[in-house]
Amino acid sequence: MSWNTFGRVFRFTTWGESHGPAIGAVVDGCPPGIALTEDDIQPWLDRRKPGQSKFTTQRREPDQVRILSGVFEGQDGKQRTTGTPISLMIKNVDQRSKDYSNVAQAYRPGHADYTYDAKYGFRDFRGGGRSSARETAMRVAAGAVARLVVPQVSILAYVAEIGGDRIDPAKFDAGQIGQNPFWCPDADAAQRWEKLVDDARKAGSSLGAVVECVARGVPAGWGAPLYAKLDSELAAAMMSINAVKGVEIGDGFDAARLSGEANADPMRPSSGGDAPEFAANHAGGIAGGIATGQPVTCRVAFKPTSSILTPVDTITRDGQATQISTRGRHDPCVGIRGVPVVEAMMACVLADQALLHRAQCGT
Amino acid sequence: MSWNTFGRVFRFTTWGESHGPAIGAVVDGCPPGIALTEDDIQPWLDRRKPGQSKFTTQRREPDQVRILSGVFEGQDGKQRTTGTPISLMIKNVDQRSKDYSNVAQAYRPGHADYTYDAKYGFRDFRGGGRSSARETAMRVAAGAVARLVVPQVSILAYVAEIGGDRIDPAKFDAGQIGQNPFWCPDADAAQRWEKLVDDARKAGSSLGAVVECVARGVPAGWGAPLYAKLDSELAAAMMSINAVKGVEIGDGFDAARLSGEANADPMRPSSGGDAPEFAANHAGGIAGGIATGQPVTCRVAFKPTSSILTPVDTITRDGQATQISTRGRHDPCVGIRGVPVVEAMMACVLADQALLHRAQCGT
Amino acid sequence: MSWNTFGRVFRFTTWGESHGPAIGAVVDGCPPGIALTEDDIQPWLDRRKPGQSKFTTQRREPDQVRILSGVFEGQDGKQRTTGTPISLMIKNVDQRSKDYSNVAQAYRPGHADYTYDAKYGFRDFRGGGRSSARETAMRVAAGAVARLVVPQVSILAYVAEIGGDRIDPAKFDAGQIGQNPFWCPDADAAQRWEKLVDDARKAGSSLGAVVECVARGVPAGWGAPLYAKLDSELAAAMMSINAVKGVEIGDGFDAARLSGEANADPMRPSSGGDAPEFAANHAGGIAGGIATGQPVTCRVAFKPTSSILTPVDTITRDGQATQISTRGRHDPCVGIRGVPVVEAMMACVLADQALLHRAQCGT
Amino acid sequence: MSWNTFGRVFRFTTWGESHGPAIGAVVDGCPPGIALTEDDIQPWLDRRKPGQSKFTTQRREPDQVRILSGVFEGQDGKQRTTGTPISLMIKNVDQRSKDYSNVAQAYRPGHADYTYDAKYGFRDFRGGGRSSARETAMRVAAGAVARLVVPQVSILAYVAEIGGDRIDPAKFDAGQIGQNPFWCPDADAAQRWEKLVDDARKAGSSLGAVVECVARGVPAGWGAPLYAKLDSELAAAMMSINAVKGVEIGDGFDAARLSGEANADPMRPSSGGDAPEFAANHAGGIAGGIATGQPVTCRVAFKPTSSILTPVDTITRDGQATQISTRGRHDPCVGIRGVPVVEAMMACVLADQALLHRAQCGT
Repeated sequence: MSWNTFGRVFRFTTWGESHGPAIGAVVDGCPPGIALTEDDIQPWLDRRKPGQSKFTTQRREPDQVRILSGVFEGQDGKQRTTGTPISLMIKNVDQRSKDYSNVAQAYRPGHADYTYDAKYGFRDFRGGGRSSARETAMRVAAGAVARLVVPQVSILAYVAEIGGDRIDPAKFDAGQIGQNPFWCPDADAAQRWEKLVDDARKAGSSLGAVVECVARGVPAGWGAPLYAKLDSELAAAMMSINAVKGVEIGDGFDAARLSGEANADPMRPSSGGDAPEFAANHAGGIAGGIATGQPVTCRVAFKPTSSILTPVDTITRDGQATQISTRGRHDPCVGIRGVPVVEAMMACVLADQALLHRAQCGT
Repeated sequence: MSWNTFGRVFRFTTWGESHGPAIGAVVDGCPPGIALTEDDIQPWLDRRKPGQSKFTTQRREPDQVRILSGVFEGQDGKQRTTGTPISLMIKNVDQRSKDYSNVAQAYRPGHADYTYDAKYGFRDFRGGGRSSARETAMRVAAGAVARLVVPQVSILAYVAEIGGDRIDPAKFDAGQIGQNPFWCPDADAAQRWEKLVDDARKAGSSLGAVVECVARGVPAGWGAPLYAKLDSELAAAMMSINAVKGVEIGDGFDAARLSGEANADPMRPSSGGDAPEFAANHAGGIAGGIATGQPVTCRVAFKPTSSILTPVDTITRDGQATQISTRGRHDPCVGIRGVPVVEAMMACVLADQALLHRAQCGT
Repeated sequence: MSWNTFGRVFRFTTWGESHGPAIGAVVDGCPPGIALTEDDIQPWLDRRKPGQSKFTTQRREPDQVRILSGVFEGQDGKQRTTGTPISLMIKNVDQRSKDYSNVAQAYRPGHADYTYDAKYGFRDFRGGGRSSARETAMRVAAGAVARLVVPQVSILAYVAEIGGDRIDPAKFDAGQIGQNPFWCPDADAAQRWEKLVDDARKAGSSLGAVVECVARGVPAGWGAPLYAKLDSELAAAMMSINAVKGVEIGDGFDAARLSGEANADPMRPSSGGDAPEFAANHAGGIAGGIATGQPVTCRVAFKPTSSILTPVDTITRDGQATQISTRGRHDPCVGIRGVPVVEAMMACVLADQALLHRAQCGT
Repeated sequence: MSWNTFGRVFRFTTWGESHGPAIGAVVDGCPPGIALTEDDIQPWLDRRKPGQSKFTTQRREPDQVRILSGVFEGQDGKQRTTGTPISLMIKNVDQRSKDYSNVAQAYRPGHADYTYDAKYGFRDFRGGGRSSARETAMRVAAGAVARLVVPQVSILAYVAEIGGDRIDPAKFDAGQIGQNPFWCPDADAAQRWEKLVDDARKAGSSLGAVVECVARGVPAGWGAPLYAKLDSELAAAMMSINAVKGVEIGDGFDAARLSGEANADPMRPSSGGDAPEFAANHAGGIAGGIATGQPVTCRVAFKPTSSILTPVDTITRDGQATQISTRGRHDPCVGIRGVPVVEAMMACVLADQALLHRAQCGT
């Protein structure tokens, strides 16, 4: 059934369809007293915004967020969270007036068209309706609030692989990530992808991608046995993003190919602070569902969008055979725009776990 | 914090430590009138039971389940669920009286020893306490109940890979799965693994594994936008199992390396029933978080157990450098015993989604 | 902490402050295919709207609701729910530009001013902020949707008592309820209250009230053991309404004064349908947390609003002694405007229980 | 549907039927490091235990609780909570082997017999099965743990009224409460009740009662807007107890009969600590759903048990007219044994709110 709320204590609920009047989120459980204005959210939305290069969909949305509740300007002139629900809204602007009759009548394979109809018997088919990636804008907005809840944590995501072409870890340069349209930390790979993605775009084809995300500064102890494990929550968060088909924590599937010796994460006494030092981080910063104090790392697989120019066999709502192809604007590689969304979900999971930890353990 | 309940409508809550007097689960939300005795649960526990071959830990637990509530023998002499909570309990028997002082004082790297202490400042260190894989017995018990809630679904899991050695899909034979100690569907691979795992066992080493799971008979429409997506719930369920580091739905990370054309799942009119026919199932039976009617498939990566004979650097509770190694009984490949657990979690997720779907959509 | 969501399967989340730009609710879990336009919601809001007589606050809000998501116009031209979250919004219009400096500095006794500050250290003090009864408009809107989920149920609330002056059960006439500004079913009482409430208004005083609510058509079987009992959910729902201090189911506190014989609800075979006939309904239609098939009845006590003209001792934010009194528009009897809110909460509880029952029991 | 978990962060789940092998509770979310043995729980159970006077049911249950998980003996020799789920179990002993065929075939009016059948089509009829007040033993056990989570709070409940005969507030003496079989703080009333209840017992009749509960030491700030309000949670908690038909916070229904002036709770600067002083406590220590720092008070109405000697009209499972009466052991006034249960639910609500507050607000 419909379950549009994420989180247990720090929670957000999203609403809205791709071509409705607006989309929004209600963030509940946020601690009070946090300085928050629209300027704290907008930059993260701008990073995700479509239409910024030829490598993402040409739909142009200003994605201007408004805060409708949950903040108040105190006597110091600073607008702060009051501890009550924060309502965020973005008006939809560029709902191009187009003819959706083909989408209304025939199911786009790989999209949620058929399954929404199978479930609900009825759907808003304009632009994918509720299943549109447009919903992820509100995740990014909620994530911007979440970041302020856990300011000690820094989160960084990037594209590690497009269409099977991987970055070279030896060439990893965090400074590069914002310098190219692919959130790519390897300048050489970024150059190769330029052609790769452009070719796909021109051919009306699409490419998959792998996004990696690292959260630094997560204190040892956040997380939870057993069904709110930090890795379990991250897996749910990432797998709930449109087009995601796989999630790994730490070495992920590679760990399944290692021996116990090769996969060991030896510990050493801390040279300074409390947390021990680790010689490796195969575990991705999580053991038994709880943070070790090392960087929390995950990898997320995005499939190539199913919107392609090549006609694909499908059926109509009435069950008749037909074919469908996608013309016009689309994302040749949806994984690229997934980067800010992955970061946002990481932030939301960590904010929630931070508050859950504080509830039970007091710190 | 502590969150030992899984599920939204069909829910189970587990309790118990490896070396406490017992472990248990409370299954809540189960529909009434389902015939259920201990004999419906025991066979699934027997499949998971340790000590059945030299390839799994030699701890010997009868794992005899008792149903303490939630069932009643009606006038037809059949014991059935009453719709009230089903309490399941297994007494711990083989808590070998051993000296845990080394585990009490030093953290086993890769285990949850350090993180539980970091979180709670205090832990039951005997046999891993609450973080022991022993807890998974109760998942299997809950899963046995869940299967009865969705009898139209058949679930099959098997080991697809140990230590990097994969089965040959061409040699897949479901009949083989129960014929070898590895739940391996490829007789040749099973033979190779015999030596592979035995060598690891003798060397006090350990191996990772990949488990695949297929659920057939899941009707199109089960599942949910957006934060209780079927794939999102499966990812959380699988990632909550001890030693799991990665989850894939359908083609998973491979999909990230395909083009949109290669990844397409064309649809054709059904030759008979309602659901359309699909030419491929890259999506693993899920689109937009909702079942397509095809087999629901996932892959789960188990790391090699961190309990190995080779001494590994670690620290004591007081932060002093030391080394630790694991002697005595252990699992050379924990992934093997993960097979019944993966099946159980699949069953629990599907039972929950079936009831959630019925709540909103009436069928 | 902040928990702005009500319900388990049919859920709504409200947001917004009295003097913010807008208030809203997100209704999630609503079944698909239900015909729903703003015209289905507006009449219920109009019933609750302030400023309709001199007996309620003179704040004038058009309370025009907009549906921002979750509905779609099908091929039959009817707008229907799609099963996705329904976002409802009302713009605040009449936030009279007034000087709130006294409220900002001193706590109004009986209001949530002090407690919000004690909890959050910070609050939107304009018009009560989040604790304003204005929030109840969104409950009425959510309740309007809930009514459509359980169309077999008819819900009727009315004021049974103001300032200790009760209606005469012998003079109960449902047709009267909409004919006077008090939702009073007893024409004589309504006449008495006219003077009673007007006197209080002129004196800047306030009066408490008791609201009764009856839901007919609730099928036997809805409800739940043990912590989502129908009566338990109703109690929570009603007690969450501003100014409510007591809730009774059926005979309530009177039952505590009866003998078992006098309180008995004998059953007789049904003359026609399935459910038995009952000779009395002391239980208010609920036994063991589950509906009996009789009318579900509850009584709700509203305190007199604490906003009165008489100065009351209080303290400033700095802990200094002062006095405060309320000038200007206010409700002399907040219980009157509670009637549509009580009905709405009854509808929401029943819709939730209907879906929960269907989840577990299939009907 | 079945929802056997209470609480949001500090949660407990109960299981078990009156005549099954055992009853139990799983307490989850409890902070770690709290000293806890069975001796901390048993005294509270002993207070509730049936068969202690002729004024309560003669069923004799030792109600010996066992802790099966969630605690561990540390190096200081003290057994403490580990932060993992605490499993509590009580074996049923005195399930008198009696003939239940009359209860199996005919519905006892006022009990949950008919409604469970209407809901589930099937029930464990022995001794009320799941709907038996026996379940409340586990609430008392969970409450004993909850008390340790909020040691700053002291909770006191007592019977204020039986069969309409009230205590005299002027004669209130807390020291009396444990000195008579009625938990009565007024020695004179206790004497009167002796005859009152004994007469009812001999006549096979039953009496209702009102229980009052006061929690002192609840800090200002605990509680929550809007749907986890402290009063709303208390109302749900109390109304979920067997036989409860009404809940009041503070002055409750009496407040509905007061003017705003009479109901005012003026505040004065604190003479010492942080919280202000209040001249009255009509509000029962809660404003806007949040604690004011004053004593939190509530009143709970228990109906007379429906188990009486007088035959009452009812129907059989097949819908035929019949009569039923209750012979043998029963409670002439179930409200008496409700006292420890009311205290326990108060403790559980406060423990939950304390942790929720800490989650959001850090203290």
